[in-house]
Amino acid sequence: MAGNRGVVYEGPGRVVVEDFDYPVFELKEGPGVNPANVGRKVPHGSIVKTVATNICGSDQHMVRGRTTAPHGLVLGHEITGEVVENGPDVEFIKVGDLVSVPFNISCGRCRNCKERKTGICENVNPDQPGSAYGYVDMGGWVGGQARYVLVPYADWNLLKFPDRDRAMEKILDLAMLSDIFPTGYHGCVTAGVTTGSTVYIAGAGPVGLAAAASALLLGAAAVIVGDLNADRLAQARSFGCETVDVSQGDPRDQIERILGNSEVDCGVDAVGFEARGHGTEAATEHPATVLNTLMGVTRAGGALGIPGLYVTGDPGAADEAAREGTLSIRLGLGWAKSLAFFTGQCPVMRYNRQLMMAILHDRVQIAKAVNATPIPLEEAPRGYREFDQGAARKYVLDPNGMLGTS
Amino acid sequence: MAGNRGVVYEGPGRVVVEDFDYPVFELKEGPGVNPANVGRKVPHGSIVKTVATNICGSDQHMVRGRTTAPHGLVLGHEITGEVVENGPDVEFIKVGDLVSVPFNISCGRCRNCKERKTGICENVNPDQPGSAYGYVDMGGWVGGQARYVLVPYADWNLLKFPDRDRAMEKILDLAMLSDIFPTGYHGCVTAGVTTGSTVYIAGAGPVGLAAAASALLLGAAAVIVGDLNADRLAQARSFGCETVDVSQGDPRDQIERILGNSEVDCGVDAVGFEARGHGTEAATEHPATVLNTLMGVTRAGGALGIPGLYVTGDPGAADEAAREGTLSIRLGLGWAKSLAFFTGQCPVMRYNRQLMMAILHDRVQIAKAVNATPIPLEEAPRGYREFDQGAARKYVLDPNGMLGTS
Amino acid sequence: MAGNRGVVYEGPGRVVVEDFDYPVFELKEGPGVNPANVGRKVPHGSIVKTVATNICGSDQHMVRGRTTAPHGLVLGHEITGEVVENGPDVEFIKVGDLVSVPFNISCGRCRNCKERKTGICENVNPDQPGSAYGYVDMGGWVGGQARYVLVPYADWNLLKFPDRDRAMEKILDLAMLSDIFPTGYHGCVTAGVTTGSTVYIAGAGPVGLAAAASALLLGAAAVIVGDLNADRLAQARSFGCETVDVSQGDPRDQIERILGNSEVDCGVDAVGFEARGHGTEAATEHPATVLNTLMGVTRAGGALGIPGLYVTGDPGAADEAAREGTLSIRLGLGWAKSLAFFTGQCPVMRYNRQLMMAILHDRVQIAKAVNATPIPLEEAPRGYREFDQGAARKYVLDPNGMLGTS
Amino acid sequence: MAGNRGVVYEGPGRVVVEDFDYPVFELKEGPGVNPANVGRKVPHGSIVKTVATNICGSDQHMVRGRTTAPHGLVLGHEITGEVVENGPDVEFIKVGDLVSVPFNISCGRCRNCKERKTGICENVNPDQPGSAYGYVDMGGWVGGQARYVLVPYADWNLLKFPDRDRAMEKILDLAMLSDIFPTGYHGCVTAGVTTGSTVYIAGAGPVGLAAAASALLLGAAAVIVGDLNADRLAQARSFGCETVDVSQGDPRDQIERILGNSEVDCGVDAVGFEARGHGTEAATEHPATVLNTLMGVTRAGGALGIPGLYVTGDPGAADEAAREGTLSIRLGLGWAKSLAFFTGQCPVMRYNRQLMMAILHDRVQIAKAVNATPIPLEEAPRGYREFDQGAARKYVLDPNGMLGTS
Repeated sequence: MAGNRGVVYEGPGRVVVEDFDYPVFELKEGPGVNPANVGRKVPHGSIVKTVATNICGSDQHMVRGRTTAPHGLVLGHEITGEVVENGPDVEFIKVGDLVSVPFNISCGRCRNCKERKTGICENVNPDQPGSAYGYVDMGGWVGGQARYVLVPYADWNLLKFPDRDRAMEKILDLAMLSDIFPTGYHGCVTAGVTTGSTVYIAGAGPVGLAAAASALLLGAAAVIVGDLNADRLAQARSFGCETVDVSQGDPRDQIERILGNSEVDCGVDAVGFEARGHGTEAATEHPATVLNTLMGVTRAGGALGIPGLYVTGDPGAADEAAREGTLSIRLGLGWAKSLAFFTGQCPVMRYNRQLMMAILHDRVQIAKAVNATPIPLEEAPRGYREFDQGAARKYVLDPNGMLGTS
Repeated sequence: MAGNRGVVYEGPGRVVVEDFDYPVFELKEGPGVNPANVGRKVPHGSIVKTVATNICGSDQHMVRGRTTAPHGLVLGHEITGEVVENGPDVEFIKVGDLVSVPFNISCGRCRNCKERKTGICENVNPDQPGSAYGYVDMGGWVGGQARYVLVPYADWNLLKFPDRDRAMEKILDLAMLSDIFPTGYHGCVTAGVTTGSTVYIAGAGPVGLAAAASALLLGAAAVIVGDLNADRLAQARSFGCETVDVSQGDPRDQIERILGNSEVDCGVDAVGFEARGHGTEAATEHPATVLNTLMGVTRAGGALGIPGLYVTGDPGAADEAAREGTLSIRLGLGWAKSLAFFTGQCPVMRYNRQLMMAILHDRVQIAKAVNATPIPLEEAPRGYREFDQGAARKYVLDPNGMLGTS
Repeated sequence: MAGNRGVVYEGPGRVVVEDFDYPVFELKEGPGVNPANVGRKVPHGSIVKTVATNICGSDQHMVRGRTTAPHGLVLGHEITGEVVENGPDVEFIKVGDLVSVPFNISCGRCRNCKERKTGICENVNPDQPGSAYGYVDMGGWVGGQARYVLVPYADWNLLKFPDRDRAMEKILDLAMLSDIFPTGYHGCVTAGVTTGSTVYIAGAGPVGLAAAASALLLGAAAVIVGDLNADRLAQARSFGCETVDVSQGDPRDQIERILGNSEVDCGVDAVGFEARGHGTEAATEHPATVLNTLMGVTRAGGALGIPGLYVTGDPGAADEAAREGTLSIRLGLGWAKSLAFFTGQCPVMRYNRQLMMAILHDRVQIAKAVNATPIPLEEAPRGYREFDQGAARKYVLDPNGMLGTS
Repeated sequence: MAGNRGVVYEGPGRVVVEDFDYPVFELKEGPGVNPANVGRKVPHGSIVKTVATNICGSDQHMVRGRTTAPHGLVLGHEITGEVVENGPDVEFIKVGDLVSVPFNISCGRCRNCKERKTGICENVNPDQPGSAYGYVDMGGWVGGQARYVLVPYADWNLLKFPDRDRAMEKILDLAMLSDIFPTGYHGCVTAGVTTGSTVYIAGAGPVGLAAAASALLLGAAAVIVGDLNADRLAQARSFGCETVDVSQGDPRDQIERILGNSEVDCGVDAVGFEARGHGTEAATEHPATVLNTLMGVTRAGGALGIPGLYVTGDPGAADEAAREGTLSIRLGLGWAKSLAFFTGQCPVMRYNRQLMMAILHDRVQIAKAVNATPIPLEEAPRGYREFDQGAARKYVLDPNGMLGTS
């Protein structure tokens, strides 16, 4: 139990698997740890032995050098595992519990947590509301693409699976509860998806596919997913979605062909700030394209769920405005159509128990929808690379060999 | 076009199929027509040629003599059909449109309609808010278990199916939009059913089965249906529900066996005032049994959707209190568990468009769930009889031979 | 700091002020302490020096002998005070903070707390969800009509007032945040009270008056309060309510005279199970009268908020059914009007921060509305007696002389 | 009865009072009438004799030449009056009724109307969802700054005042129900304003002041209004608001001084696309300033209500992007704070009945808040001019001398 090992960011394009310290119940100095958090005691924490820990598209933003993430940062915020040790203040979570860890860390004691807004907890990140494991500017909580990880406020944060054996049978599905399944679901819920809705989801990456699976779970009549990656579109079609190839031009016409109507009830942006243009502009970044397109294809009175990440600082942006997160938005169009817009991190705890129930009772096959693909921890660099190249897969790391990858 | 023919109530236990007048754009004197409604002009009405018109459990209350319904009342409030004639004020509905008629008649011009509470429209029933076709004390609008029926405020009330051919392919499913599908769905929505819920539905008649199908459509994790009719329970199991045989004792124990937990998140009462007791009391009526049981099996903080009908006057009730609709409710228990209770007619228009979309896009097989069974209009008396005897079927009359029953 | 002193129940009609032990961070054996809670460690607790602690109508149920409360029970669940000591796990609440203590104890770590249903916390009362200080069958947490009280899960439960001096200026208003102000507000919110509503509130005791003040704060157009106590009705009129004297007969007629309409949009039951009859029946208890009356006077489509307490066991009830909390409810009437019913303890934490803000910014004068009357701790028995006799006052005890009563 | 007279737009900066035809129950050809609407029969309409009809800030956009409004357009969409004639299909509204006319015209028969989204009715404007009287690109319905106006779908659209005499006593308040009171209220409701909220409202014109009055009515703790017009800020202070002078620099600092906290719970944009910059940039237009500032001053997890108008075409804009309604929005900031944004016309019918009740029961003095100032119809040009110059007044025209201005 003396050591730990996991995925470390070592500069643009470089991730390595390295040894580092086994967690203790205190936040130690290290790369990316906010000074105000150094030395913070965590008696309310649990140490989790990781069973599954996924590579996320938002990790890619860091690895591509589109953020100010420091070298040496341990990555990983999509964590599922077994509790192996508890701090003295942990009362209800027990050693041996199999749990899902919401990617957004929250305290359960501030105004926002009490209002179920755990994506913007006020007490865990000294810089601003909101935090996550292994992420730049998120307080410095050590990442969980590792054998072991410290989870603070464990009684509040951890979702226990009711039956260990049943859980292990569906572990790849349950592994999506830490982030992308709730995130996609949140995108749909805020977009107003409900029984009988027609939905356009921009982006067929894992979050887009999770949003699509969520839309179907919510009873949507028609779910249309747009992307320019043919494999990802094929993946979307594999579980009942219609698709739009945005490299072929304006989604509007393709939606019209599918629905007999060029507008949908609900729009979801599962792309975020690294968006490419549509049609002939597909080769270059157009950070506002997705939102402007969604305004065009969403019917008056509809809503846009925006789980795709937009940032306040993007060193790799094409222009000055985008570098500080300012985009050219067709607000006049949105206003004329009385649209509503919902942004921000998904408050995972608002949804994860319900989605766990849906998984355990076979109402949704989320691992299949996102093509969850377990690989050994040591192969994480390959996973990052292939995912960056557009593989239609959700890579799940297996740090302790409990997924049988080695 | 000069004649009409349909199902007429002729006293307890007796329904006949008779000729009567083809509708005009005026409400004429007749059995059960409220005097204040006699002579009411209906320039905003459409005459609908019935394609499908269902026998409802609430019709049975009248036919069993449990209401003050007058002899000669034309029955029927679950109507689907084709518009064959429009009054001069109808602007958007066109002759030839295939439409669903919400069972609750509403004006689209009063406060309640403007607030989407169409189950309690203030302008169509002189006695009290709320109205329906072919029903006692509901204003006297002529029933629609008939070849033709007058629908007032047609632009407001009628739901047009977007494509006639596609609609005819799913006509038995769409026929459930006039009442039981929205009614069951409303029961679930008010009970709080959503992704991952566990649900107990009391009653496996058509409304209970529609509620069960709705719960699944809403993403419920586990749907448990209770009844004492083995055929109806088998029907519930046929589309993925668990079942409880209430003749075998307290549902609580059976729920515990299914879920490993004796309480569910949400309770739905799809039985109403003619409830039988549970276990050894199953032979006699115990009008409060269902509600009291639901309070017991619904977890603290949950809600009860009560689409099952409770009445203010029941001439056939076992005791004085029940005769005026007063029941012995375990309110202390409900209060200790912080339960909420939602009663009343389903406001069909709040849901029918969405549910139509779910049907047309194959997200739900409601006709199969309720075992929709078309029969010729002339066989309506048999349908009433078999349904009363507990057939696990939803009888759909075919007054114009468009369902191919003759 | 070695001692404590407070109000103790010594049998029907008898409360005394006695010395007992100063709290420690553990729940000790004592009258009414659930055996499963004996010895429970409370490192997450704060010890609060009481500034104000109110006598509640629900205390009266115990003192009148209408419950199974044991002799020796320390009473009191409406607590406001200063933190004087923290357990080792308390992180954000500081010694010296002036705080409001929600009457319902909750853990902040169970499913219900995470869903903001703190009135039915699963972890603090071994008997059933839901707990409170100094109350029968609520787990045995020692009451707070005392100099000092232990508050578990202090970071979660306590609401800190932002500025100590400003808070002390409005301490009698802020003292209502622990129970009756949120409770009355919850009754209104669940009843659907909003801008322009007409509201009938049954009961002009402190909860009824708090509900009335809440209704006005919520923007209600007309607030009508019914009672049979002339002083309490005068109190209601003092801040802008209309009143109905239920001893003069059916409220319906009096409401008609006030509004020109016999029905209101929203109904609130601030009476509960010890209700008297109306008109000539006012001398005797009729536990279902309030609810049945509210169904009559609430318009179709409306809702009933039921903060008034209904119990599962009432040794003093007039009949067998009422002794176990079963009441004769006119459910048929409620159903015909599509009413909704909301029961249970108010989840105080859902509202108390907002209501504190409204107090601190002078938007509401809740202490004046309920006629808050501070008295010395030693005079608690007089307070109980006068309140039981119908004084139009809310008695606030002053155990540490910080309200200036001695 | 043969003639009509009202306010006509005759080009940038020019409004005149002219005679034109008395309305008939048909939409005739004329300036700005959509060809597809010419000849449209309106048997469902009422002719309203105007009692009060207000000049609106959105009229100013046209008069300043910031739209493509045609010369000859009869202006006016804030209408209150008496029904003097009904088309044959009007059933419940009676001649003699005193009514408020929602500025957004809606049919009460399309999907959006049935969903209470009357700001985007699908049937009254051939160009796009949404319509209004006397407004460019809104279908061509003749304006109501006139003696008489035709109101289509009168049973649906008109809000009848229950008592004519009581209504005339508060006619200047009730005149705000047609637009700015609901519009300001909608801005607050969508921004999440409720009991105890802190609110920042950008803009102290009539809509901003109406939003401020609404925020107080909704129970907000602190309402801060920002503008650069000293008279309008003084007007805001007159009824209990705090103010921020945006010409003095960043509102953030001024808010901090007022609240001890630089962020508010809720933000309302009551300015729209003709926004000026803050501080030293106050002399020039910066169309995205208001939204970007609101994102800065609204706390994480908050929402922005945006009743201020943003357009899809602005011939007077400073740059190409703004000319088509594209603005530079700090979306990265909004996303980091998990903000939600609500745009579009207020669906007046969702709120006007409730707000009428609040007026009639003296819960709000909206006319006083916005400084409603009646002037004779003939002085409309002066009203337009003074309002454009920043008068802290809401001008109410008196076309039939019923407000006593002449």
